[in-house]
Amino acid sequence: MNKSMVRAAFGILALSLTTLASAQVKPEDQIRYRQAGYSFMSWNMGKIKANLEGTYNKDQVAAAANAIAGIANSGMGALYGPGTDKAIGNVKTRVKPEFFKEGDNVGKIAREFNAAANDLAKVAASGDAAAVKTAFGKVGETCKSCHDKYRMED
Amino acid sequence: MNKSMVRAAFGILALSLTTLASAQVKPEDQIRYRQAGYSFMSWNMGKIKANLEGTYNKDQVAAAANAIAGIANSGMGALYGPGTDKAIGNVKTRVKPEFFKEGDNVGKIAREFNAAANDLAKVAASGDAAAVKTAFGKVGETCKSCHDKYRMED
Repeated sequence: MNKSMVRAAFGILALSLTTLASAQVKPEDQIRYRQAGYSFMSWNMGKIKANLEGTYNKDQVAAAANAIAGIANSGMGALYGPGTDKAIGNVKTRVKPEFFKEGDNVGKIAREFNAAANDLAKVAASGDAAAVKTAFGKVGETCKSCHDKYRMED
Repeated sequence: MNKSMVRAAFGILALSLTTLASAQVKPEDQIRYRQAGYSFMSWNMGKIKANLEGTYNKDQVAAAANAIAGIANSGMGALYGPGTDKAIGNVKTRVKPEFFKEGDNVGKIAREFNAAANDLAKVAASGDAAAVKTAFGKVGETCKSCHDKYRMED
């Protein structure tokens, strides 16, 4: 998978990437950084879920949604460069080989995820818990659609 | 260190936290999530640095700055709860014990970091590379001020 394929796969996500900046990140660090991004989004998804199921704190939900959107919009497609399709030493990855072969579908899911994350951030700023619940569900669906298809079991 | 001390230490950062939501995260996961946040910010700082030193891409810099600000504003103080001051199994941490004893100073650094990250995001949206260079330098200084005092060497 070469750089232009990554770019195609991530569609609009990749438009903001300069080749220079992404090329300087070692493959093992690309894996670490992408896992860090998903991990941090996961924490923030968990906070929003806890707010929806318990006491709703508008500021906490808005902050969590902004963190998720900020990460989603940061151009993570650059973290799937050549050599990042399998473990590098003790840096493991759960991404399936299909991920690197089905660029059109991956790009579609990535765009849906971004749109859902941006919508969640917008709705969260309004403080409307019911609307946040709907928007949160849509983000979760886009996460799941990628995990189901492209993430290996533990 | 109890919850009210964490809250004091992180000042305004902690105001948006609900006890419920933060209490549900296991100490080892708190350590993992905070490391993920710093790691992902580090990737984005690196991208901004590469843009300042090479070809400047306004959209990439703005996206990176938004990711950093989103993470900075997400209430990471909740990830320094009881039991997170030392390694848990193979989940290691480089935070020094002093971090948990010097709440006033940690809170001061955290507020300075947040302010600098928000300023960087604002300036990055304008596309003014010279202003971004200054704002980026200030974020880096606040990172360093905490690392120098509260992070162990590798």
